[in-house]
Amino acid sequence: MAARAEPDHDDLARRFTATRGLSVALVAPLSDADATAQSMPDTSPAKWHLAHTTWFLETFILAAQAGYRHFDPRFGFLFNSYYEAVGARHPRAFRGLLTRPSLAEVLAWRRHVDAALTDAWSRLDRAARALIELGIAHEEQHQELLLTDLLHLFAQNPLAPAYAEPRAVIASAPEPVGEAPATGWRSHACGIATIGHPGTSFGFDCEGPAHQVLLRPFALADTLVTNADWDAFIADGGYRRAALWLADGWAWVQREGIAAPLYWDADGGSFTLAGRRQRHPNAPVAHVSFYEADAFAAWAGARLPTEAEWEVAAVTADPDRGNQLDGAGAVMPLGNAGPGGDSLFGDVWTWTASAFLPYPGFRAAAGAVGEYNGKFMSGQMVLRGASCATPRGHSRASYRNFFYPHQRWQFTGVRLAKDLPC
Amino acid sequence: MAARAEPDHDDLARRFTATRGLSVALVAPLSDADATAQSMPDTSPAKWHLAHTTWFLETFILAAQAGYRHFDPRFGFLFNSYYEAVGARHPRAFRGLLTRPSLAEVLAWRRHVDAALTDAWSRLDRAARALIELGIAHEEQHQELLLTDLLHLFAQNPLAPAYAEPRAVIASAPEPVGEAPATGWRSHACGIATIGHPGTSFGFDCEGPAHQVLLRPFALADTLVTNADWDAFIADGGYRRAALWLADGWAWVQREGIAAPLYWDADGGSFTLAGRRQRHPNAPVAHVSFYEADAFAAWAGARLPTEAEWEVAAVTADPDRGNQLDGAGAVMPLGNAGPGGDSLFGDVWTWTASAFLPYPGFRAAAGAVGEYNGKFMSGQMVLRGASCATPRGHSRASYRNFFYPHQRWQFTGVRLAKDLPC
Amino acid sequence: MAARAEPDHDDLARRFTATRGLSVALVAPLSDADATAQSMPDTSPAKWHLAHTTWFLETFILAAQAGYRHFDPRFGFLFNSYYEAVGARHPRAFRGLLTRPSLAEVLAWRRHVDAALTDAWSRLDRAARALIELGIAHEEQHQELLLTDLLHLFAQNPLAPAYAEPRAVIASAPEPVGEAPATGWRSHACGIATIGHPGTSFGFDCEGPAHQVLLRPFALADTLVTNADWDAFIADGGYRRAALWLADGWAWVQREGIAAPLYWDADGGSFTLAGRRQRHPNAPVAHVSFYEADAFAAWAGARLPTEAEWEVAAVTADPDRGNQLDGAGAVMPLGNAGPGGDSLFGDVWTWTASAFLPYPGFRAAAGAVGEYNGKFMSGQMVLRGASCATPRGHSRASYRNFFYPHQRWQFTGVRLAKDLPC
Amino acid sequence: MAARAEPDHDDLARRFTATRGLSVALVAPLSDADATAQSMPDTSPAKWHLAHTTWFLETFILAAQAGYRHFDPRFGFLFNSYYEAVGARHPRAFRGLLTRPSLAEVLAWRRHVDAALTDAWSRLDRAARALIELGIAHEEQHQELLLTDLLHLFAQNPLAPAYAEPRAVIASAPEPVGEAPATGWRSHACGIATIGHPGTSFGFDCEGPAHQVLLRPFALADTLVTNADWDAFIADGGYRRAALWLADGWAWVQREGIAAPLYWDADGGSFTLAGRRQRHPNAPVAHVSFYEADAFAAWAGARLPTEAEWEVAAVTADPDRGNQLDGAGAVMPLGNAGPGGDSLFGDVWTWTASAFLPYPGFRAAAGAVGEYNGKFMSGQMVLRGASCATPRGHSRASYRNFFYPHQRWQFTGVRLAKDLPC
Repeated sequence: MAARAEPDHDDLARRFTATRGLSVALVAPLSDADATAQSMPDTSPAKWHLAHTTWFLETFILAAQAGYRHFDPRFGFLFNSYYEAVGARHPRAFRGLLTRPSLAEVLAWRRHVDAALTDAWSRLDRAARALIELGIAHEEQHQELLLTDLLHLFAQNPLAPAYAEPRAVIASAPEPVGEAPATGWRSHACGIATIGHPGTSFGFDCEGPAHQVLLRPFALADTLVTNADWDAFIADGGYRRAALWLADGWAWVQREGIAAPLYWDADGGSFTLAGRRQRHPNAPVAHVSFYEADAFAAWAGARLPTEAEWEVAAVTADPDRGNQLDGAGAVMPLGNAGPGGDSLFGDVWTWTASAFLPYPGFRAAAGAVGEYNGKFMSGQMVLRGASCATPRGHSRASYRNFFYPHQRWQFTGVRLAKDLPC
Repeated sequence: MAARAEPDHDDLARRFTATRGLSVALVAPLSDADATAQSMPDTSPAKWHLAHTTWFLETFILAAQAGYRHFDPRFGFLFNSYYEAVGARHPRAFRGLLTRPSLAEVLAWRRHVDAALTDAWSRLDRAARALIELGIAHEEQHQELLLTDLLHLFAQNPLAPAYAEPRAVIASAPEPVGEAPATGWRSHACGIATIGHPGTSFGFDCEGPAHQVLLRPFALADTLVTNADWDAFIADGGYRRAALWLADGWAWVQREGIAAPLYWDADGGSFTLAGRRQRHPNAPVAHVSFYEADAFAAWAGARLPTEAEWEVAAVTADPDRGNQLDGAGAVMPLGNAGPGGDSLFGDVWTWTASAFLPYPGFRAAAGAVGEYNGKFMSGQMVLRGASCATPRGHSRASYRNFFYPHQRWQFTGVRLAKDLPC
Repeated sequence: MAARAEPDHDDLARRFTATRGLSVALVAPLSDADATAQSMPDTSPAKWHLAHTTWFLETFILAAQAGYRHFDPRFGFLFNSYYEAVGARHPRAFRGLLTRPSLAEVLAWRRHVDAALTDAWSRLDRAARALIELGIAHEEQHQELLLTDLLHLFAQNPLAPAYAEPRAVIASAPEPVGEAPATGWRSHACGIATIGHPGTSFGFDCEGPAHQVLLRPFALADTLVTNADWDAFIADGGYRRAALWLADGWAWVQREGIAAPLYWDADGGSFTLAGRRQRHPNAPVAHVSFYEADAFAAWAGARLPTEAEWEVAAVTADPDRGNQLDGAGAVMPLGNAGPGGDSLFGDVWTWTASAFLPYPGFRAAAGAVGEYNGKFMSGQMVLRGASCATPRGHSRASYRNFFYPHQRWQFTGVRLAKDLPC
Repeated sequence: MAARAEPDHDDLARRFTATRGLSVALVAPLSDADATAQSMPDTSPAKWHLAHTTWFLETFILAAQAGYRHFDPRFGFLFNSYYEAVGARHPRAFRGLLTRPSLAEVLAWRRHVDAALTDAWSRLDRAARALIELGIAHEEQHQELLLTDLLHLFAQNPLAPAYAEPRAVIASAPEPVGEAPATGWRSHACGIATIGHPGTSFGFDCEGPAHQVLLRPFALADTLVTNADWDAFIADGGYRRAALWLADGWAWVQREGIAAPLYWDADGGSFTLAGRRQRHPNAPVAHVSFYEADAFAAWAGARLPTEAEWEVAAVTADPDRGNQLDGAGAVMPLGNAGPGGDSLFGDVWTWTASAFLPYPGFRAAAGAVGEYNGKFMSGQMVLRGASCATPRGHSRASYRNFFYPHQRWQFTGVRLAKDLPC
């Protein structure tokens, strides 16, 4: 593996400050209660996200610094997420019962930790700085979850509260407009390609090792599947035709009574972070499960791309010019009407046909940090790209996101692929 | 039925104001988040109790007043509890997800409703005044639930937060002291007695009609079962001897791994509204289920009293001199060390051997208010007396409280009875 | 308590032989598989009933006889039902997995035990003979369960197999005929009455002690509620009107999608032990839960009788002349068209308004046999009378049957009561 | 795709007769009850396997033959497994309640169908003969399931009944003997290889298309993991060390209290089709889940092979000389003591690191038969090889078996792999 380049020290400080600040900005519209409630076991309270990312820094970096004083030693038990090596932890399904510490106390803890890191900054060794970089990326992941979890929480409230107004930059084009562009197909030749993170800069453990894959010729759609496409799928009996579905997916549809994407209502609206909004036909469909994505692809006579196909297509793209999170306000998928609407990154994550499994030669790191991704390599499917809630700067062509095939509270959508003759 | 005496008008106003004020005082120590969370489907958020009691007044009294303007018409759906006749309602298990309206908004709604009632006071007819009286009693019930639900919520938090300091009057004797009094038995002769509410003043529908019962000679313990008694039961294998238990109770013990009263810890402590406190051996045991109460009685060679026996014993007692709720602060059972510790009322509710069934001649009132108690007459057991969380003034000898036999998050305890020779 | 009369020795032998023989006759139409399957945790396989009743005799009588050789010592674990004092036992929900021992082996075990008891007969002491009498009554209970459990099993089979042809005596009048008799009301005066088993002959523990009760004037319907009555209830929205239902019952209706009695189909038929049959409007409705019975009574402007009321009405009746089980063949409720159709006993059990609780002065017997009924005195409702599947000779006015309020796979029906002016 | 060679007509007839006969021979030791019971939703009754394989032939072949008379038209609903296109079907979890039709009736149905196929044999067209070949392979799959399902059923019975004596050929060496052979590693070079079924003879749909894969150098163990190996894993805390487990696997271990392979007891025994037997240390471990296999590999410092690696290693092997099913009697894994104990086929299936996903270019066939495998390509892991219960002749290097990662009632075991330097 090539030597890992060290991040520029000042740049790291700037990114650290910006990331920590954005988390706080994201909760500005929230009451203490908003930040405390948990709407299902899959989600976490906003306060918990603020606290857990802080716990990560305190546990893996500050605790090793001489003289560091823990803000409250009891918080370790409360805000560990899943690191078995770090000890017992509060059960995930009951995070919403932690009305104490309050949001204000958690924010004070954040300031305590940030100040301690600022004090220690010049003394951090290379390993600690690598953990800072991991901590930033970790917090960016939780920023996205914070927003998707809030969306789920507010969607349960009959008052349909809006989290915020749409972001300024979005507000000028509050909805997709104009004609839906015709879907084109971008062809890719067969052959051996290299995918995976090369290890020369920061990447999550599961993104590597870089390795060769053998691809057959394929084409990738140059647009995301839209709400109008999905309406056509529904109108054609998509949710009632067993032949389109994987067996597990069909069982899920029957058991849960699924008949539309999450947050859709019967009156043409959808619940968003800006409250209930009329669905725009040209906007990318969001909040569909892998099962739905796969059934849609079968109905459309196409298929989902593999993660290798997607990565090969994305490797030369700019990952930072799409519709992603870069400040406070309500984000939502915009598609071609939004900034960088033709990017492979942004708007919604793309479900792939690939199970989340270790790459050849993958080894989990030793110790608690080694629990990062490897232990989740079972039962989940890979998503590629980024969504409107993914912080700008967080994305890479090699990035592997993953969720269980029935989950759909993330901004998850579909980009079709198809085989080409060899 | 004898004519129902109308409450004194000024007295009613005074009681209304005091009751509405006490509810607000009870939530003074709470954050918005504390008031929003729901720790299990059996409990409700504090904010919900504040709102639901207000909804009751608005729906059953104010809505009928000309010109009344609803504070927010959407609140009806959110804060109806179980009145089928009033329409659809928000599912009980998801009350903790209602982070909006905020606690502050609910308090504003309360002020709106209280002001409207004050305005309308002189115009209220006899039926409306009867509903005010019912509304007061209803709110008193919810004050008790508010406290027991909070106790349950805070007990789930590893930080073990205290709701409040013990009340001043209690603080001077923060724990039971001195020797446990020897348990004596008060004998009651056999014969025909009349129980049930006579209907000449306010009572809940299920308390009547007054009717004759035939009693056999019995004796009722003059003390409540204490923590020390319960320690002896545990030490004697009480939770491991199937022969002591009802079959449903034994299945519950096995399934839930029950081995002590709720809130007891292994170090001699118990979680209370004033935080974790050492258990005092002479204090009444609390937070036991009917199953546990029945098994304890079997172990002690005694039995639980029937509700008729308890009522006959209590009919001449003063229901207002025991350890009950009469202001802000943390309440807890005190037994003989507390005020009126020898009263049949206060400290803990007494499980009886009686199922909650209609009295002979009971008829539910017509309309929505008729859903008050009758429809719960299935599967639940009667408790008698009052607890430390029951507002003073709320109690009567004929009062019938009821819970499912496995429930124990209320202040529920045991007073033994036994047969006497005829 | 009055001295218990000892049963006549020859009569006991005759009854023992007849009861043991009837059980075997009841399974004659069954295959090994029919006798092995278990359709829900509430029911047991026919083979299990044959075995458990045999286990009872072996464990409580033969095991104490010098020189008795157990047929297979492993059967104790398999066929204990719920006697905690006798040790561990096979879990109830998995009885249907016991394909071994086979039906033939169980029948061989029965012959072994019957022969051993015949050998020992002249040496049985008074206590053993009392246990024989209990064993007979116990087996009669299981004969009824065997039939109702089979009915439930066959009802799950899309082939709708018939257990047997209707019994000869019934076959001559295979269905109720003629006009439905007008319902009359039989009045009963108020006053003190004695109910409960006097203890001078055999009765189950829970039937005593005899004791006085105070009754108000009431009337009891002289007919059972019929299928036609129930059709009218359904047509009037009975299953859709929350106001008619207890809260637990309404939750059950909603959760389970209940809209008719068990075994009813949409085409006017009902599944019976003789296969699917057209429902006769005059036949008593069967297979309704307590919740349904209570809702029906509310709809009809009446109520269910208390168990004391029913017993007072039945105390002078002949318990042996109704439509009950007295031989092989398919039984079913016949009402006025059947033998003794006007009896308070037979056709269907009558749900009462009484919870199954101990009578005043009730004490469970010591030891394993003491687990007979006392430990079930929680959460269940009393039924009175007898059904078409209750062996003739098993019934008494003091007999207390009991089931949970949602259960309805027994032959359970409704006889209305109402208050009279005092 | 190369043209599919047609099977020799006489050979097809011979194989058809042998396969149909073996199924009947396998149930010879069973009672009607044994053949009817279902021990969990994952398993099916033996009778159901006999019936479903017959339904397959009747539905997909005979129904299209002019003049075919269905044995019982109601059986279609009962014995369809999962073919949505063929219509509604009996719920899987309730197969054990079908005491009718009896085993004898199902066997009569089999004779009816076999006779009809014999009559029609000379008239079957090429498509029908291809379905016969599929029907044979389908029935072979169900023969294996029949045995594993029976093993699970009998394992639930405290009487621990033996299905049969070990097969004669096995009985001469009833247990593995001698020294465990040292595990060696067979190296494989990197490069492009072709895997998947070429389509020139019978294979299941999911085995193709044949396609190229890119492999890195690896080594495959030349022995299966043994009981002694597994004992060492347990002794080293394997089931208590979270770091060894996938997160889903660890949750499963905790939730289900898993501490050893299925059917192991604490006294060194294991339940087998020949009843309880002492475990031999050199025999291959069986009845472990994917989660356990993966954790074991992590503990052993190795990994599971991918399915491509396994297939490349197996492609030149004889798939028919290992310990597989070739007649009546109790099969069990024997390892090096059994026939062909060094084969990659036989004894136990090998869990791979590969999710069961479509091969590049896979398309499900149209119509009901197209439901064969494609719709199960979600959430399951691939197993390769064959077990002692797989009929001899059924296996191929390209064969893909698949189960959910927690399932372990099949004969599932572990063969380790490791990376080699490039």
